[in-house]
Amino acid sequence: MEVVSGIAELRGKLAAYRREHGDGRIGFVPTMGYLHEGHASLLRTAKEQSGLVVLSIFVNPLQFGPNEDFERYPRNTERDLQVAEAAGADLVFMPDVAEMYPRPNRTTVSVAGVTERLCGASRPGHFDGVATVVSKLFHIVQPDRAFFGMKDAQQVAVIQQMVRDLNMDIEIVPCPTQREADGLALSSRNVYLSEEERRQALVLSQGLQLAAAYAGQSEPTAAALVDIVAGHIRTAPLAVIDYVEALQFPSLEPFAAAADAADESILVAVAVKFGATRLIDNLILPIRK
Amino acid sequence: MEVVSGIAELRGKLAAYRREHGDGRIGFVPTMGYLHEGHASLLRTAKEQSGLVVLSIFVNPLQFGPNEDFERYPRNTERDLQVAEAAGADLVFMPDVAEMYPRPNRTTVSVAGVTERLCGASRPGHFDGVATVVSKLFHIVQPDRAFFGMKDAQQVAVIQQMVRDLNMDIEIVPCPTQREADGLALSSRNVYLSEEERRQALVLSQGLQLAAAYAGQSEPTAAALVDIVAGHIRTAPLAVIDYVEALQFPSLEPFAAAADAADESILVAVAVKFGATRLIDNLILPIRK
Repeated sequence: MEVVSGIAELRGKLAAYRREHGDGRIGFVPTMGYLHEGHASLLRTAKEQSGLVVLSIFVNPLQFGPNEDFERYPRNTERDLQVAEAAGADLVFMPDVAEMYPRPNRTTVSVAGVTERLCGASRPGHFDGVATVVSKLFHIVQPDRAFFGMKDAQQVAVIQQMVRDLNMDIEIVPCPTQREADGLALSSRNVYLSEEERRQALVLSQGLQLAAAYAGQSEPTAAALVDIVAGHIRTAPLAVIDYVEALQFPSLEPFAAAADAADESILVAVAVKFGATRLIDNLILPIRK
Repeated sequence: MEVVSGIAELRGKLAAYRREHGDGRIGFVPTMGYLHEGHASLLRTAKEQSGLVVLSIFVNPLQFGPNEDFERYPRNTERDLQVAEAAGADLVFMPDVAEMYPRPNRTTVSVAGVTERLCGASRPGHFDGVATVVSKLFHIVQPDRAFFGMKDAQQVAVIQQMVRDLNMDIEIVPCPTQREADGLALSSRNVYLSEEERRQALVLSQGLQLAAAYAGQSEPTAAALVDIVAGHIRTAPLAVIDYVEALQFPSLEPFAAAADAADESILVAVAVKFGATRLIDNLILPIRK
């Protein structure tokens, strides 16, 4: 495994790979580091589908709001590199902020529609920052496939929309959310939780499981799905709900009854604060008509 | 010369070229058609610097305002293909609107700063439309170099800024404005002009030449350059000035005295209406300090 911090150096190594392996596929896993088993599973999936796996680690200031956790976002390069190597990364790109933004950034990639609800509503500008940095990284790496975790389902919808609208020649591969044994979705931010918060945070995945059970029995409505999940989350005294929503996926348009939804899937998504820590989780319900 | 209208077909031909010519450079000239000698000179320059020259012809609705000339923008495919072939195009990409925008476009590429003055002020949203479609075309063609005419100097500044900010792996090659024998800058829109308007339209290039002569003699100030050009344009009774500005290039920042400008060039740019026809022209003054 090689580690590079410069764009020119990375491009040189990628060009050399392409010269030597004309038909070799390049797989790309963009991350903000502090890698956990969710990232490792993305890397393993990328390895299965690619000749060369590129991992990027970059905490992107552009996607953090002024009162968010950019400064305190957890970082641990040494452990990240161990996790990356064990999971099959071939090339790790770790630029600093000056390498990615050598001058004030003036160009923004914005995706309308899918960014208006959920985290897009709670975190203004967040998805502009995500789309812009992912666009930059895609241009730097020029991968054949890029792998994203479905825990950030709205991010997947945003990236897919951007890739389609801008005719980027990249296949986006959404990968399943990885969870702790008790159901908590893996997240770099879980490290912020106190012992009691960690215990109560189980209401996210539990609430979503209740919604899944309900949807398995009857034709779900958006309102009923939201009520079931929100009702369960409210049983945790420390939980402060940011949002609970049921929307069509990947359009993220509202629906009333699942039978009327134009998309083939429904996303039930939650964001909940425990103290200063904001956790998200979600569930995809396939609706085949 | 081959002509294709589908993105997938174009990509197939480009992939075949890359397979056969591993080190062959792809040159790209994006246009809105109605080709004139200005476009032909871009194609010839591209031919000198590339193994394969791709020309796109697409009148992009996204960059026209609601009251602009999208519907009546001149089109002549048969002549365009003759001009293209004579100038050395190898592959012409002529998509229709449904091929480029198969669904409502939700993703926008915006460039701040360089778009705020000149045509950016006169034509709100214009450069978002330009940056977005050029981004799409760049992703479709994936050229090594792209060639743009300096008649649209602000467009060159916008595309260069976008390419730098988004780390696109493409070299932008600005090419000199082509002119009629009497000095009028070539433009597809010249065809709109009446005989009298065509005669009076000479004040644009004449005014710019007066400014160049002035700058050759003394250290120019922005105000003096603007006064010289605007004063001359006002001698044409049919001319209605949209703007006359002298700015640093490529930053498009204001300056007072050239000696204080941080950039190495000064752009004197004009937009003038004759009836419903809006003409632009400009001049670059190199300021070596």
